[in-house]
Amino acid sequence: MLYLGKKDILEAVTMSDVIDAIDASYEIYQSNQFQMPPRMQVKDNDNTLLLMPCITDKAIGTKLVTSFPHNSDHPVLHGLVILNSQENGEIMALMDGSFITGFRTGAIGGSAIRHLSNKDASKIAIIGTGVQGLYQVIAACTERQITDIYLYNRSADKIPSFINSLREWIEDSIRIHPKDSAEEAVIHAEIIITATTSKVPVLPDKPELLANRLIIGVGSFQPAMREFPRSLYQSADYIFIDTVDAIAESGDIATPLSNNWISQETVLTMASYIAAKSEFNFQDNKTVVFKSTGMALFDVAVANLIYQLATEKEVGIDLN
Amino acid sequence: MLYLGKKDILEAVTMSDVIDAIDASYEIYQSNQFQMPPRMQVKDNDNTLLLMPCITDKAIGTKLVTSFPHNSDHPVLHGLVILNSQENGEIMALMDGSFITGFRTGAIGGSAIRHLSNKDASKIAIIGTGVQGLYQVIAACTERQITDIYLYNRSADKIPSFINSLREWIEDSIRIHPKDSAEEAVIHAEIIITATTSKVPVLPDKPELLANRLIIGVGSFQPAMREFPRSLYQSADYIFIDTVDAIAESGDIATPLSNNWISQETVLTMASYIAAKSEFNFQDNKTVVFKSTGMALFDVAVANLIYQLATEKEVGIDLN
Repeated sequence: MLYLGKKDILEAVTMSDVIDAIDASYEIYQSNQFQMPPRMQVKDNDNTLLLMPCITDKAIGTKLVTSFPHNSDHPVLHGLVILNSQENGEIMALMDGSFITGFRTGAIGGSAIRHLSNKDASKIAIIGTGVQGLYQVIAACTERQITDIYLYNRSADKIPSFINSLREWIEDSIRIHPKDSAEEAVIHAEIIITATTSKVPVLPDKPELLANRLIIGVGSFQPAMREFPRSLYQSADYIFIDTVDAIAESGDIATPLSNNWISQETVLTMASYIAAKSEFNFQDNKTVVFKSTGMALFDVAVANLIYQLATEKEVGIDLN
Repeated sequence: MLYLGKKDILEAVTMSDVIDAIDASYEIYQSNQFQMPPRMQVKDNDNTLLLMPCITDKAIGTKLVTSFPHNSDHPVLHGLVILNSQENGEIMALMDGSFITGFRTGAIGGSAIRHLSNKDASKIAIIGTGVQGLYQVIAACTERQITDIYLYNRSADKIPSFINSLREWIEDSIRIHPKDSAEEAVIHAEIIITATTSKVPVLPDKPELLANRLIIGVGSFQPAMREFPRSLYQSADYIFIDTVDAIAESGDIATPLSNNWISQETVLTMASYIAAKSEFNFQDNKTVVFKSTGMALFDVAVANLIYQLATEKEVGIDLN
């Protein structure tokens, strides 16, 4: 049984490896060869314990997350991923679930960029400069030759530490532009990523600023949360989601559906897109929306890859 | 974050400590100050992943168990206990859940012996010499001055290794008597413990062999499993259970109830007994039945104690 912390995981896998694992997850999702019951929530006043298991043909994975929204000195979320053998049930590895969540959510955005953005896209905007935003940018730089990154965050004081963290990951030649508004951040971008927990849209409600872009949302994970403005749904040529659970879970899909701004048939899964890519008449310069809420299937696929590569490279702490 | 394997746990706590933690769990159970939803089961053909969370005022605990009934070279069950802080959600410890399950189930039996058996009981019988049986005997020897242990197992070839394991734990002066039948094993015993997964009663259906004894069952955890014979319900002066879930979960309680051999009012929780002990007119030489199916509340209380003592004694692997 291995323990793999953040440092070990980064010795074992690259962002590109994890984006491959996300793509492989979509194939499993499309094939229906997995068991993934609704996540279990145990509430204790405002705090929550979440248990998210998933069994595939290759592994048994469980993500455990605690959410303590009033934490100030500690992170709000703490996570662990437990990987059991599909052969005999043995516990193969325990991993830093907080890091895996951020890194694999970056890779979910990265996979969307790989499949849905223009090949020569070089300018991205990120709205929300938290941990999620960091891994989104890293994944974008993995998939495209990014030259310019535009940043906006509601609290400007978080920008400098975000840039410091980001500089550890990306080439020095990439220009970083902090902006005073979301509008200024998105105006030059070909890929726009939102990574906030806002309850009101964080993107400008101006169709001309969002048209012919790839818009990725990874922030809203509850029906009361929304990052996308109403006009985006009118101008969108395609709306993709990573799991059908996003329809009920995220306000960015639930709200336009319940208001009839869009119909459910126009919301497609990434899995169905990847499976039938050749049948899509998909060209550059479309307005494409991708909304992710994540699912345990990603965690088990990514954790299994991390475990395989960690074993090969002999990293991690052996607990036996 | 600490990792605590079996060896670390045994450096941190004694069986007596764990029996104390079981008693403290009954007080929490009686007070209703905990969150313990029904366990989550994810089935994959005959294999099962079980997730058993519980939140108390002191800690957040989750037990994860895989059950692979067709395993031959590996144990059927693999377990992990995850302990999170009640203050901020941080993961405080990861522990060998297989060992905790066996050891705390021993302690559940030990607590029943502490509260329900004659103070001078010195002879015990154990039916079923698996891992569960081992910790039951260890707990009995912790609570009473045991002089004689009578053993019966359906497969006699498992007896020698059981005795070898047991000898590491108990005083040399204690006599161990392997027997060829359950009847021969129980005839001299004052405390009788069953620890099998049998679907038919393993104790003789002879009231005179079970009268005025404490009978403890820890084996049956499904409605189709039964260890106790019909006549035991007629002669029992008291029937105790560790959790009301035992009524639905164990055939040793569900079967006599559905057949009207007993009525539900005669089945009392150990928690209610401990809370109102002074009101019970409980004397020696009664026929007392105690049936345990276990619950996550025990695991979190025991894990929290292990963590506290492990921290004090500086045992375990620090994963930070």
